[in-house]
Amino acid sequence: MGLERVVADTPFARPDFDRAARQGAGEVIYGEGKTAEQIAAIARALIEGGQPRVLATRVEAEKAAAVDVCWAAEGDGPASSLAAALRQRMAVTYYEQARLLVFGDMPAPDGDGVLCVAAAGTSDLPVAEEAALAAQFLGNEVVRLYDVGVAGIHRLLDCADELNRARCVIAVAGMEGALASVVGGLVSCPVIAVPTSVGYGASFGGVTALLAMLNSCASGVSVVNIDNGFGAAFQASAINHLNTRGATAGR
Amino acid sequence: MGLERVVADTPFARPDFDRAARQGAGEVIYGEGKTAEQIAAIARALIEGGQPRVLATRVEAEKAAAVDVCWAAEGDGPASSLAAALRQRMAVTYYEQARLLVFGDMPAPDGDGVLCVAAAGTSDLPVAEEAALAAQFLGNEVVRLYDVGVAGIHRLLDCADELNRARCVIAVAGMEGALASVVGGLVSCPVIAVPTSVGYGASFGGVTALLAMLNSCASGVSVVNIDNGFGAAFQASAINHLNTRGATAGR
Amino acid sequence: MGLERVVADTPFARPDFDRAARQGAGEVIYGEGKTAEQIAAIARALIEGGQPRVLATRVEAEKAAAVDVCWAAEGDGPASSLAAALRQRMAVTYYEQARLLVFGDMPAPDGDGVLCVAAAGTSDLPVAEEAALAAQFLGNEVVRLYDVGVAGIHRLLDCADELNRARCVIAVAGMEGALASVVGGLVSCPVIAVPTSVGYGASFGGVTALLAMLNSCASGVSVVNIDNGFGAAFQASAINHLNTRGATAGR
Amino acid sequence: MGLERVVADTPFARPDFDRAARQGAGEVIYGEGKTAEQIAAIARALIEGGQPRVLATRVEAEKAAAVDVCWAAEGDGPASSLAAALRQRMAVTYYEQARLLVFGDMPAPDGDGVLCVAAAGTSDLPVAEEAALAAQFLGNEVVRLYDVGVAGIHRLLDCADELNRARCVIAVAGMEGALASVVGGLVSCPVIAVPTSVGYGASFGGVTALLAMLNSCASGVSVVNIDNGFGAAFQASAINHLNTRGATAGR
Amino acid sequence: MGLERVVADTPFARPDFDRAARQGAGEVIYGEGKTAEQIAAIARALIEGGQPRVLATRVEAEKAAAVDVCWAAEGDGPASSLAAALRQRMAVTYYEQARLLVFGDMPAPDGDGVLCVAAAGTSDLPVAEEAALAAQFLGNEVVRLYDVGVAGIHRLLDCADELNRARCVIAVAGMEGALASVVGGLVSCPVIAVPTSVGYGASFGGVTALLAMLNSCASGVSVVNIDNGFGAAFQASAINHLNTRGATAGR
Amino acid sequence: MGLERVVADTPFARPDFDRAARQGAGEVIYGEGKTAEQIAAIARALIEGGQPRVLATRVEAEKAAAVDVCWAAEGDGPASSLAAALRQRMAVTYYEQARLLVFGDMPAPDGDGVLCVAAAGTSDLPVAEEAALAAQFLGNEVVRLYDVGVAGIHRLLDCADELNRARCVIAVAGMEGALASVVGGLVSCPVIAVPTSVGYGASFGGVTALLAMLNSCASGVSVVNIDNGFGAAFQASAINHLNTRGATAGR
Amino acid sequence: MGLERVVADTPFARPDFDRAARQGAGEVIYGEGKTAEQIAAIARALIEGGQPRVLATRVEAEKAAAVDVCWAAEGDGPASSLAAALRQRMAVTYYEQARLLVFGDMPAPDGDGVLCVAAAGTSDLPVAEEAALAAQFLGNEVVRLYDVGVAGIHRLLDCADELNRARCVIAVAGMEGALASVVGGLVSCPVIAVPTSVGYGASFGGVTALLAMLNSCASGVSVVNIDNGFGAAFQASAINHLNTRGATAGR
Amino acid sequence: MGLERVVADTPFARPDFDRAARQGAGEVIYGEGKTAEQIAAIARALIEGGQPRVLATRVEAEKAAAVDVCWAAEGDGPASSLAAALRQRMAVTYYEQARLLVFGDMPAPDGDGVLCVAAAGTSDLPVAEEAALAAQFLGNEVVRLYDVGVAGIHRLLDCADELNRARCVIAVAGMEGALASVVGGLVSCPVIAVPTSVGYGASFGGVTALLAMLNSCASGVSVVNIDNGFGAAFQASAINHLNTRGATAGR
Repeated sequence: MGLERVVADTPFARPDFDRAARQGAGEVIYGEGKTAEQIAAIARALIEGGQPRVLATRVEAEKAAAVDVCWAAEGDGPASSLAAALRQRMAVTYYEQARLLVFGDMPAPDGDGVLCVAAAGTSDLPVAEEAALAAQFLGNEVVRLYDVGVAGIHRLLDCADELNRARCVIAVAGMEGALASVVGGLVSCPVIAVPTSVGYGASFGGVTALLAMLNSCASGVSVVNIDNGFGAAFQASAINHLNTRGATAGR
Repeated sequence: MGLERVVADTPFARPDFDRAARQGAGEVIYGEGKTAEQIAAIARALIEGGQPRVLATRVEAEKAAAVDVCWAAEGDGPASSLAAALRQRMAVTYYEQARLLVFGDMPAPDGDGVLCVAAAGTSDLPVAEEAALAAQFLGNEVVRLYDVGVAGIHRLLDCADELNRARCVIAVAGMEGALASVVGGLVSCPVIAVPTSVGYGASFGGVTALLAMLNSCASGVSVVNIDNGFGAAFQASAINHLNTRGATAGR
Repeated sequence: MGLERVVADTPFARPDFDRAARQGAGEVIYGEGKTAEQIAAIARALIEGGQPRVLATRVEAEKAAAVDVCWAAEGDGPASSLAAALRQRMAVTYYEQARLLVFGDMPAPDGDGVLCVAAAGTSDLPVAEEAALAAQFLGNEVVRLYDVGVAGIHRLLDCADELNRARCVIAVAGMEGALASVVGGLVSCPVIAVPTSVGYGASFGGVTALLAMLNSCASGVSVVNIDNGFGAAFQASAINHLNTRGATAGR
Repeated sequence: MGLERVVADTPFARPDFDRAARQGAGEVIYGEGKTAEQIAAIARALIEGGQPRVLATRVEAEKAAAVDVCWAAEGDGPASSLAAALRQRMAVTYYEQARLLVFGDMPAPDGDGVLCVAAAGTSDLPVAEEAALAAQFLGNEVVRLYDVGVAGIHRLLDCADELNRARCVIAVAGMEGALASVVGGLVSCPVIAVPTSVGYGASFGGVTALLAMLNSCASGVSVVNIDNGFGAAFQASAINHLNTRGATAGR
Repeated sequence: MGLERVVADTPFARPDFDRAARQGAGEVIYGEGKTAEQIAAIARALIEGGQPRVLATRVEAEKAAAVDVCWAAEGDGPASSLAAALRQRMAVTYYEQARLLVFGDMPAPDGDGVLCVAAAGTSDLPVAEEAALAAQFLGNEVVRLYDVGVAGIHRLLDCADELNRARCVIAVAGMEGALASVVGGLVSCPVIAVPTSVGYGASFGGVTALLAMLNSCASGVSVVNIDNGFGAAFQASAINHLNTRGATAGR
Repeated sequence: MGLERVVADTPFARPDFDRAARQGAGEVIYGEGKTAEQIAAIARALIEGGQPRVLATRVEAEKAAAVDVCWAAEGDGPASSLAAALRQRMAVTYYEQARLLVFGDMPAPDGDGVLCVAAAGTSDLPVAEEAALAAQFLGNEVVRLYDVGVAGIHRLLDCADELNRARCVIAVAGMEGALASVVGGLVSCPVIAVPTSVGYGASFGGVTALLAMLNSCASGVSVVNIDNGFGAAFQASAINHLNTRGATAGR
Repeated sequence: MGLERVVADTPFARPDFDRAARQGAGEVIYGEGKTAEQIAAIARALIEGGQPRVLATRVEAEKAAAVDVCWAAEGDGPASSLAAALRQRMAVTYYEQARLLVFGDMPAPDGDGVLCVAAAGTSDLPVAEEAALAAQFLGNEVVRLYDVGVAGIHRLLDCADELNRARCVIAVAGMEGALASVVGGLVSCPVIAVPTSVGYGASFGGVTALLAMLNSCASGVSVVNIDNGFGAAFQASAINHLNTRGATAGR
Repeated sequence: MGLERVVADTPFARPDFDRAARQGAGEVIYGEGKTAEQIAAIARALIEGGQPRVLATRVEAEKAAAVDVCWAAEGDGPASSLAAALRQRMAVTYYEQARLLVFGDMPAPDGDGVLCVAAAGTSDLPVAEEAALAAQFLGNEVVRLYDVGVAGIHRLLDCADELNRARCVIAVAGMEGALASVVGGLVSCPVIAVPTSVGYGASFGGVTALLAMLNSCASGVSVVNIDNGFGAAFQASAINHLNTRGATAGR
């Protein structure tokens, strides 16, 4: 009597448990398009599968709170005592600006050197922080250089030392994305450029910055997707752990 | 004395009653941009015109509930006794994830073989389920292979048997849409690729996956519109009923 | 003492010898971007690997002649007696309009039924012929319906019988690509749409036809890349051989 | 003592009072981006300037109600007795589906013949009605042919007589927009094609239909902007009043 | 013993002999992508089918000369005496700037009034002449207003009388295409805008002019494809023959 | 014990205190993507750094009110007595239509001449006012010419005198953006064109106007980003202060 | 007897003789799409109309030579003695890299100050030279700063003095176009950015540089079309002659 | 007395002599858009400035030969004895497929490990070789894995060992670019993806591959511009020399 409503009950995920072995870092949960229940369930599965900590990206504040409720509910019930045990020894931290949700603690840095995250403007900080915090999650020490856009070039030039000490620089910029080119010309380490969707009109949600970065006149710049701070951090971390591959501490 | 408000009262639809004869499947209601009243009225007209069951696609949960109210209201009233009779012998089921509304029961499969729906990630499930359920509605047995994205290629390779038993594979993927190419290289049956709008930034709401699938290096892949799970199911069903054309059972 | 010129001598191809087993059709050579030498060499390798005939697509007339020279040269020399033997029992035919090069003879049709290739205008014929001849190469009987564009809709309607007898219709059209939609509404078998680059101005080299076909209001239409007559033929052939899979005659 | 808030008080419009003489039809108010107050004020100015009736397009239901309040308020007050008089002799009608607001009555048709509005699907009706009602406002008799999309081509062919009696056909379609081409091949009068934003994915909000219509293989089709039912009506009306130009009855 | 070369011998065209009856104008040959032989053959078929004259568009100078050779060869030989007779009574004229090839003489104007072709700059003349000559071919008197671009607005304003006497204005412009809007605001007859591919950089081969014309702030402007002078002429002619439809003189 | 929520506490901005010396105008706050707290804090820092007044652009009404609350709160507290003093001598004014927030008073004009802001339609006023008010903020006298779109060209021509007296004209238009070309042909001073996002369908949020302005057939037109009224004002002000550079009064 | 070939003989141009009075600079011939004959004829008309010198842009080397032949031929013949006289007192100079053709001598500079043309790379020189030479033609003193791309930022910073002395800087760059932003942050005068088509792949023929420049994070930057060195020079010259308007020396 | 032809004689380049110190690799000449003379001159300047070898990219065969002539001519003449000496001790080698011109010998590898270049198809080899040879030029040992496209996934899986031994993988693919995602899922080292312009129709000259790679579902993939084999090599080399920075042997 009334509409029969069928909620999907298909098994929705096949966690990739040996990714840590294969890729040097455990699986990360891409939070967009997943429900709070799905995020909590995948996180639990990964932790039960042996990952010491789990990162979920692109989690809005409201969903983060809902994930926490799911997580706590499981932890309290007797039915799943392992999850309860996990819940007790493991904090869940939400980094609001970066929209990151971390199950467990941040590890101590174990990379070969230091990563540098440079961001052009104040509006680019959410993406820059996604990169910086994800890099920390992956076991890297991070130096932040913020508000160093090229319209006031001296602000960037003043940071030459920090830039040159890095094993890899992540350059985060929206609008015309010129930061990547200027940084690329200043350093010898690899530069990973992250275009952001900051801007309006003909910035086309970050496409202009993306295209500009792909066409950088400086060699040694590669690019990730718009607003993909995590992706840049992942690759920078891979670069920063080339000498410690095989070692698994901190991950 | 206030504003005279004219609500359109034009006859809005000319149901295509002999489509079942012509195309082997009755008319399906595209729910987007139609009111609940329109959906209920077209469904009734089609059922009164002889279709044993009716499918409406792209119906949001709220609208589905409203359709059900319209449908029930008609069923209860004395003015339209046929509709009332129809309402009594016919359930209305709403598949929330797939946004499908089915008037009547799912038929028994009557195709030549089995269809396979493969989906890359958890976020692709709404589209995959639209395809799978629509295929079932059209009289097909469906095997679901979910979360088999190419970043963990072994997950897909483990499913080689299911893939090779299918009469047609529907490959559902967003982001870079690489699943279609890899599947296309593994099977000899036709592959219908469905790009999804899953992704962000330079995924352009599914355009990247669409383009990638159109450029698949594997032969034997054809493509439908972004998120068009139903369209893929319709063609896969046509392929799966080539030997039973003319027969009308189940449709 | 002049410029030292290094011509690449890298091994350029790893022919996929078990594709016939895996995909039901042997490997096809995509001629664009390959030299005549490369085409001849890959063809020889495939034939020596056991393929009874080889198809090369997108071969311009001039390159076709050059391939023939390479082929003959090998055939005449004593150094490669197997190639010489192959050369003697195997004709090389060039279909100019379709830009197809066939090593060996066309096989007898061994599919489940008949394929139909419908083309909108005279300018679409090169792509239509690529589809039709490739389908013949893959063991299909083909009916051609040409110059049946929708601006004179009666020309298409006059062909309703041929369309309805097909196991699959390949609809080839440029400009606004409306043929696919009208055909899609007339038949119950699957329709594979091939947009062509015919047109000018806002046809954008076939993009308009491609988009129109992807948005077809008729269900049961899937689409391949612009001018990809071969791809449509490949999938149509897969559809037309579903009942004879496993059998290898004719391929 | 808080924020000083400055509301713009710039003169915002220069009504074009002799447009009726110059263009054969008075000025029409484009409602989008204008406030209810602005719409009411411009309408009053135009009527005081001598236009017998005024049309405002793209007025959402809520704004229409607000316009009516502004209009009534002015009409009731003693300060603007002319507006009060106008308000008394003039109804304001809101056509909800078409989002049109009409100050005054619809005129009797005074064109040379009949206009025909053909629409492909139910979802295209808002635009089709904008065209049909605007044409009526401009003094034309209108025949409506709705739900005649090309996927069921016989529905359109059944209307051949109505199409051929028209002085001009307005063809309204979204998705792949093929209706314009088929209509263009059936009639000898001019065809004005209106692409609609109906569709999803690669329909790009109507761009695909727009491009398809611009590339129509049928001669004699011209195109207006996406969803621009009014623009099509305006030009169709100009075509339908070529013999009565100079006469001003009905406008 | 060399390459077997197969030249297509498929019947390539189904001339639409009753188009004149259906559309009020005979079939026109779109020359691009057709060989000289095909153009000559279709022209002969149309003339033998009763069309008093034939127009071929988009014929490059070299191809026009080749068509003439084909045409003459047929006329001279005894084997096809009808073609020979036709050839004797029928001139073939090539309009180089407009790339039009006319078999037979231009007709006397038989429209309801005069058409006006306005062009913005010298570089737009090829398209403007395609429009003007095609309109003459279709039985219209044409007034040409050239080099009246809006950067020197007085040049256009000086032509107000000619513009206002027209039954329809064809506005031809490249670059930013502003001519259409200004003309649209000056006249009461329909305006058909033809964007041209004149420009560079961000003119994108005419796309900018096309978009600008579609967004004209003046009502009563419709648009055809880039460089489609013929299409504009065809529709303008249809507008200019509304009162004489049925009569066939001049066509 | 519940979700640990980390609010970013990174230093977010490096105000560019010597920009006034370097660029002739102090730093302006781009309000989009910044919180009210950030805006207030940056404004305070700039004022404490010596700027006599501060402009924030793209501030929505709600955020403006929040900024005012932040500003007042600081002003009242004893902890930051300088800010309190600043708050007492400095008004905060919000220009709603232009979305501008001004800390301090508008200066007296100190430029070389007069700037002119011309806008095509009523819907373009928000951008036009952003330009006009920003120009006033930067020390310029401004003449406004509104609703002078080219569809009624005489309205623009009537303003020839005002246009010709200007040191620089800012031409603001959406839709097809033709205003820039016509103005560009009428004046000898530089014209800065501002495309607006006014329009629908193929206006693509201002892209069409942007492209049209970039392709202006009139020389002497340069273009800024869509809706960038401030950017146009900034450059126009630079042009209007070329003779007074070095002088700092009013800025 | 043979093809009748009609070469257009329409009057192709209406030179705008009072543009010098209206715009402060005489009409310039846009050479692309014009024949050598047309260029020579328009140049003669303008010179006979009183312009002391004429500039033609975008003239390829081959066409320039042809123009010179036309010009000389006219000069030698008795039929047009004025042209002959003109020819004698007037040199024709072709600047190959810039593709500029100048009839008459370059004038002495008569602007208010100095213009600066900064170019990012060697490949940008053709556009930079078009700008620099056109500026000289329009009566400006020009300082060239070439090969100052941002990948070696010190090269640009070394030129700070020249940049700051300019009345206007023209910034010419392809690829990611970052030069405009960095220059925009260094100077207080207006900056006109010229994107060039230098680059490959995702530079899209200059579109990336164009978009980047439109989104410059530095205020005070406006943009002209891709490769439009002349347009930038024209506006820069207008800026540089604001104080001498009315004076006509040098132009 | 004919045309005065001015060949540009502007100083065209400011070689960046301390780039080796700053970036760890000397300046590389981007050959496109430069003349043979310019390439030879810049190469000489760099070598005279102390670079032990010079690389020029994107040099077509014909231009390479011309560069060699310039180079030899200088070497023979007495006027520039240093250049002559240089010429004697330094070979110039042209790698045709990769379009690379190398002045001097390839260095011995001095990186931290091995780089791997994987390419999808035979047509991608020019770009793959540009990457591989440029990497060798920069002092890296390179392993080539060619023709490992995902349509025959086993070919790639067979190379798992080579992939996993690399310090960095460069994944080169056109069409749908899926190789990058599959590789990205198999390895733990950084992956740099190079989209190629291989493909047709909706591959849009490499844009589809570019977008697909940017949207890779595998983490750890960054992307360079279309066909930018050199750029990938440069960054991969930077990654491979992180431990040897400061050391200058081999570069």
